[in-house]
Amino acid sequence: MTGATRVLLDESRTPRTWYNIVADLPVPPPPPLRPDTSQPVGPDDLAPLFPMELIAQEVSTERFIAIPESVRDVYRLWRPTPLIRAHRLERALGTPARIYYKYEGGSPAGSHKPNTAVPQAYYNARQGIRRLTTETGAGQWGTALAFACAQYGIECEIWMVRASYDQKPHRRSLMRVYGATVHASPSPLTVSGRSVLAERPDSPGSLGIAISEAVEVAGSGPEVRYALGSVLNHVLLHQTVIGEEAIEQLAAFGEVPDVIVGCTGGGSNFAGLAFPFLREKLAGRMDPVVRAVEPESCPSLTRGVYAYDFGDAAGFTPLLKMHTLGHAFVPDPIHAGGLRYHGMSPLLSHMYELGMFEAVAKGQRECFEAGLRFARTEGIVPAPEPAHALAETIAEALRCKESGEPKVLLTALCGHGHFDLSAYDRHLAGELEDYALPQDRIDAALAGLPVLESPGSSGQS
Amino acid sequence: MTGATRVLLDESRTPRTWYNIVADLPVPPPPPLRPDTSQPVGPDDLAPLFPMELIAQEVSTERFIAIPESVRDVYRLWRPTPLIRAHRLERALGTPARIYYKYEGGSPAGSHKPNTAVPQAYYNARQGIRRLTTETGAGQWGTALAFACAQYGIECEIWMVRASYDQKPHRRSLMRVYGATVHASPSPLTVSGRSVLAERPDSPGSLGIAISEAVEVAGSGPEVRYALGSVLNHVLLHQTVIGEEAIEQLAAFGEVPDVIVGCTGGGSNFAGLAFPFLREKLAGRMDPVVRAVEPESCPSLTRGVYAYDFGDAAGFTPLLKMHTLGHAFVPDPIHAGGLRYHGMSPLLSHMYELGMFEAVAKGQRECFEAGLRFARTEGIVPAPEPAHALAETIAEALRCKESGEPKVLLTALCGHGHFDLSAYDRHLAGELEDYALPQDRIDAALAGLPVLESPGSSGQS
Repeated sequence: MTGATRVLLDESRTPRTWYNIVADLPVPPPPPLRPDTSQPVGPDDLAPLFPMELIAQEVSTERFIAIPESVRDVYRLWRPTPLIRAHRLERALGTPARIYYKYEGGSPAGSHKPNTAVPQAYYNARQGIRRLTTETGAGQWGTALAFACAQYGIECEIWMVRASYDQKPHRRSLMRVYGATVHASPSPLTVSGRSVLAERPDSPGSLGIAISEAVEVAGSGPEVRYALGSVLNHVLLHQTVIGEEAIEQLAAFGEVPDVIVGCTGGGSNFAGLAFPFLREKLAGRMDPVVRAVEPESCPSLTRGVYAYDFGDAAGFTPLLKMHTLGHAFVPDPIHAGGLRYHGMSPLLSHMYELGMFEAVAKGQRECFEAGLRFARTEGIVPAPEPAHALAETIAEALRCKESGEPKVLLTALCGHGHFDLSAYDRHLAGELEDYALPQDRIDAALAGLPVLESPGSSGQS
Repeated sequence: MTGATRVLLDESRTPRTWYNIVADLPVPPPPPLRPDTSQPVGPDDLAPLFPMELIAQEVSTERFIAIPESVRDVYRLWRPTPLIRAHRLERALGTPARIYYKYEGGSPAGSHKPNTAVPQAYYNARQGIRRLTTETGAGQWGTALAFACAQYGIECEIWMVRASYDQKPHRRSLMRVYGATVHASPSPLTVSGRSVLAERPDSPGSLGIAISEAVEVAGSGPEVRYALGSVLNHVLLHQTVIGEEAIEQLAAFGEVPDVIVGCTGGGSNFAGLAFPFLREKLAGRMDPVVRAVEPESCPSLTRGVYAYDFGDAAGFTPLLKMHTLGHAFVPDPIHAGGLRYHGMSPLLSHMYELGMFEAVAKGQRECFEAGLRFARTEGIVPAPEPAHALAETIAEALRCKESGEPKVLLTALCGHGHFDLSAYDRHLAGELEDYALPQDRIDAALAGLPVLESPGSSGQS
């Protein structure tokens, strides 16, 4: 089957279970802590924010968790997604490597995000929740949740960072097409928003402020909850449909992967592809190198510390042990908005400490160049986030060209770039710059790491 | 298989031939004429514009024309496209009808246009052509040709109507991502463009002016040709892969279509879906009603005349016998840019005269409402053009609800609306108006129909 381009699976092959890698880890990940007591967070602490079934998934140690039929039924609108061999890119590179990409951009929202938005909407609807709140930066997550809420008749209320709200009107429109209400954040609708506006009426906003607003409203009533698009265990869990399908499809190509590459912001896309393959690796059935790619401008894995820190800028969330640049770190406005997060998923951070995968950082010029190369050969214009993974995949393919090794490379193309074309325009005009992130900016942000109360473990590793 | 949502075909099922319906028509379509002599146009007249293999296809009477392997190999990047049953839309409508849509928006350019752009680039490349010129309005066709040229190493030079160039910067960027050169039209690069600019330096341009510029440059050298995205026979021919796949997929669902609906601008998307089914109908193997949907603001089939007219506004093209509102007709700036053409494909016009399909016109508010309804149930945001077909499909499904008939409805969702979200925004804000196109505007444009020289047949039916 070497000559094939795409392996499609019939909808009956949509996975029936999500894979929970926690069940297979040699050491369990450290728990989230309450900032006031340094004690592990319990279900009651999370109940105002999330429905009970998601809280149960967040702490579950079961290996496989059944996907509800209602969720599979929505998945069927675009799943299983294709696994595609990049014949044309291979030829353009002149590499002996065989490059495969799992394409998630065919979903209604144009990315992998609906894989978790749909079950989150489902579990909330089952618990009688009528409204979900969330924040969104570039708009990928907001779009996915708006679509998912439309499927379950739930209202969706989104705080979109003011700067993106003004600069990305089309993403904003897309959320409204799906029936969501979209506010520019900071907004006059919340205490948090008003207090920011009082100080600075023209504030461009930040993800931290938007989270505060969404969380504040979620806590305001029994029928309102909050939804998060990455970082947490249950979000990573839901994304494992990507890797489960890819295992079956790669086998249909007759291939075993040598190198698996994914981009990391909060970590959900990378985990979704990698976890099922890591299960196979732990079981000794394959032995791929697994590699995360992050932006040089926000290098939480490669230059952050492993410590307890807040998940948001304002310090409202539980303390999460994770690779972090400090919750006060403000990444530069690079064009891969989905990779601009000061921390890394606690579960992935723990696995990184265990040596289960590698990480590299890339500058955005190399990434946009990879995106162009991919578009002109394979046709799909990648979003800037997966362009990071493509840049490393191309670099690996060129190393194979040097060494003559015909490695099998697998990557996740987690979304299309239809709403990122102004960034490509800037790249084509030569306006995008790379730079080395000054260490003093990281040091300054890390100086603000929270000090744990005595009952907990040390906050710095 | 009634419960299934999507029927996918393996890439080996990509059609091996295009279907040429001319072979099966009871009366051949009237030929294009030279304006100066009123004699049929010969291959030599077209050779400066098109490569010989496309000219041969334009006049071919063979029933099936083989698709070159190189073209099938590019098609494989996204073909076969899925045929999807709209379970969720059906439930929302409460209709007993079963609604199927063939989705072409998963192509690199996001529409059905690459189905013809790829073979056009291929045949030009085979003839040693180094550069293709074309015009584009909203940008769908320009995007498709830019992608196709990138596959064959041909330069692509696009004149984009100035108003769209300024209003749709993302479409412009997408063409550049694929490596094309994009000029705002009127441009200072051509005699036609300069003469317009001399009179009106701030001209917003028109498709007619852009065609003149692209044709002028195509005629300038032996290695430059011109490419057209709709209207002509060879373009419609290439689109028949849509219907051929749909026949196989609908059979896999166990269905026979009762009603087939497609939107018509120049006619290529509609023809692509309908022609293979019309072949089956002519052969007595099925008996679907086939219906074209056009915008009320540009109703060439339902309110135009069947007469010889120019294909462009400036009167540079051969005379084509077609349903036309007059080449001087300037449609209002509605949001379905792909449906704003004064004429209809000559082949389709002829078939309409033979009674082979029906036509209806729709206002844009009903179409955007249908688009919203579709997005919120099926997930995909339709482009405004196929939203016209969806509006009629929904109307038919509601008639089935009245009558209780469980009809099988098939439509073509020829592209996504990712670059049309500002139009949806205006619809959500209640800003889009419908109106009855005044008859005197049509009459005024029809008064300018060309008068044929004596050797030809009458210009008005």
